[in-house]
Amino acid sequence: MHLPDIDDLRAAETRIAAHTHRTPVLTSRTLDARFGAELYFKCENFQRAGAFKFRGACNAVLAATDDEVCNGVATHSSGNHAQALSLAAQIRDVPATIVMPSDAAQVKQRAVAGYGARVVLCEPTLASRETTLDTIVTPVGGGGLLAGTAVAASATAEPVQVIGAEPETADDAYRSVAAGYIIPVEQTRTIADGLRTSLGERNFALMQRHGVRICTVSETGIAAAMRLVWERMKIVIEPSSAVTLAALMEKRDDIPGQKIGLIFTGGNVDLDRLPFA
Amino acid sequence: MHLPDIDDLRAAETRIAAHTHRTPVLTSRTLDARFGAELYFKCENFQRAGAFKFRGACNAVLAATDDEVCNGVATHSSGNHAQALSLAAQIRDVPATIVMPSDAAQVKQRAVAGYGARVVLCEPTLASRETTLDTIVTPVGGGGLLAGTAVAASATAEPVQVIGAEPETADDAYRSVAAGYIIPVEQTRTIADGLRTSLGERNFALMQRHGVRICTVSETGIAAAMRLVWERMKIVIEPSSAVTLAALMEKRDDIPGQKIGLIFTGGNVDLDRLPFA
Repeated sequence: MHLPDIDDLRAAETRIAAHTHRTPVLTSRTLDARFGAELYFKCENFQRAGAFKFRGACNAVLAATDDEVCNGVATHSSGNHAQALSLAAQIRDVPATIVMPSDAAQVKQRAVAGYGARVVLCEPTLASRETTLDTIVTPVGGGGLLAGTAVAASATAEPVQVIGAEPETADDAYRSVAAGYIIPVEQTRTIADGLRTSLGERNFALMQRHGVRICTVSETGIAAAMRLVWERMKIVIEPSSAVTLAALMEKRDDIPGQKIGLIFTGGNVDLDRLPFA
Repeated sequence: MHLPDIDDLRAAETRIAAHTHRTPVLTSRTLDARFGAELYFKCENFQRAGAFKFRGACNAVLAATDDEVCNGVATHSSGNHAQALSLAAQIRDVPATIVMPSDAAQVKQRAVAGYGARVVLCEPTLASRETTLDTIVTPVGGGGLLAGTAVAASATAEPVQVIGAEPETADDAYRSVAAGYIIPVEQTRTIADGLRTSLGERNFALMQRHGVRICTVSETGIAAAMRLVWERMKIVIEPSSAVTLAALMEKRDDIPGQKIGLIFTGGNVDLDRLPFA
């Protein structure tokens, strides 16, 4: 199994640079004062298709050979990866087929169709689905972002601690790291719908190699963090992004005085179903 | 009556530079494609205290003499100016008293108190209140932002058209410009609560001098524009900001091919009372 290193990351960055947004890093005096630390929010909710998933999808579609994509690309996703792959396929001008659970939000189905992809509905189930600062906190679902962040952080001059944050009702990463092998996620209704996935094998191997820590957060903590960002930072983030700040709010022991990077992974929210309505 | 010119604007900019955020200008490929024009969104919803009003309040408090502010500063506002002045007073370390209508949102009262200001409640009424890129579109309430934008635009090398957007249920600017004298706003329940104010005399004089156009928008148009920005741009803007994009959505005749700047004035929204809940 080839585990990507920093050179693989740099090659991917070069490959997708012309098609991706360089998203801003925002700060908030209010939140800095509240935590007694310097917080840096990487806003991938401003990425194309509304989430960081576009980076990986774009890289995969552009790296493929003509033979590999001549019949199009396909994925199974209810969320951000569906939109990301649809847009990447549109950019390379190949057809895309997206299998979505029949209970996926209408707004997401429309967005996928808007990028020119064909939507195929299926029954909703988890079983068939696969996805320098002192400290960097990322959400962890399938573990790709967390693993990639750990690889990138390992190449910095100064040591950087990498923490994965996940809902305590979907704490498979926490239990997997503790056990030393992948424990699949159990059925969960967490509002962080992007984090209902189990860890990928390569991602887990990288998480182990780089010694990442996992931190779990409550559902009310996720909703509170999301609301705080909307109200004070004026940024629309989805619950899966809010787990990072929720981790700081619920586990404050070693925060004061640190510089902390938080990755806001996406902002695709169903405004008709807000957790604080 | 002294009407501010470009030199006054530059002096104010210098005075407040150390205390204000330089807010980003964001773009959206989705919205560019939808309108067939290049749109540039100036995001003052990321300004300190959550709205452009902090610029004016900060300038006023910093420009005052010690004698003028030794007993503190005060204003009457239910909204963004209340928070803006409270923060400006905190920066100069003088007391602030804010008169707010008793029906002002709790979240706004708490924010004002959070900046150290004293809140005095009064009966809600309009009568006692004062406030204060080829084409630039700004919201118009009291007219200060619109007038200031017109002054700044008059100093650019290329001619720039300046348009003020306001709710059709609070169309006092439209009627005032047509009449040639200030017609006060009538009682209104527009969701753009920052635009329920009448024009200031100096602002109106500048609007006349610089020949600004006024464009009115519907309530449903404001809510639709606000939703579009939240969903596609991932930015929390308040209804008063959304009138700018609503103007483009409802009056599309002369848009295609233009470069259009839109000022998002603020993002202070009551998440418990959304117009699309």
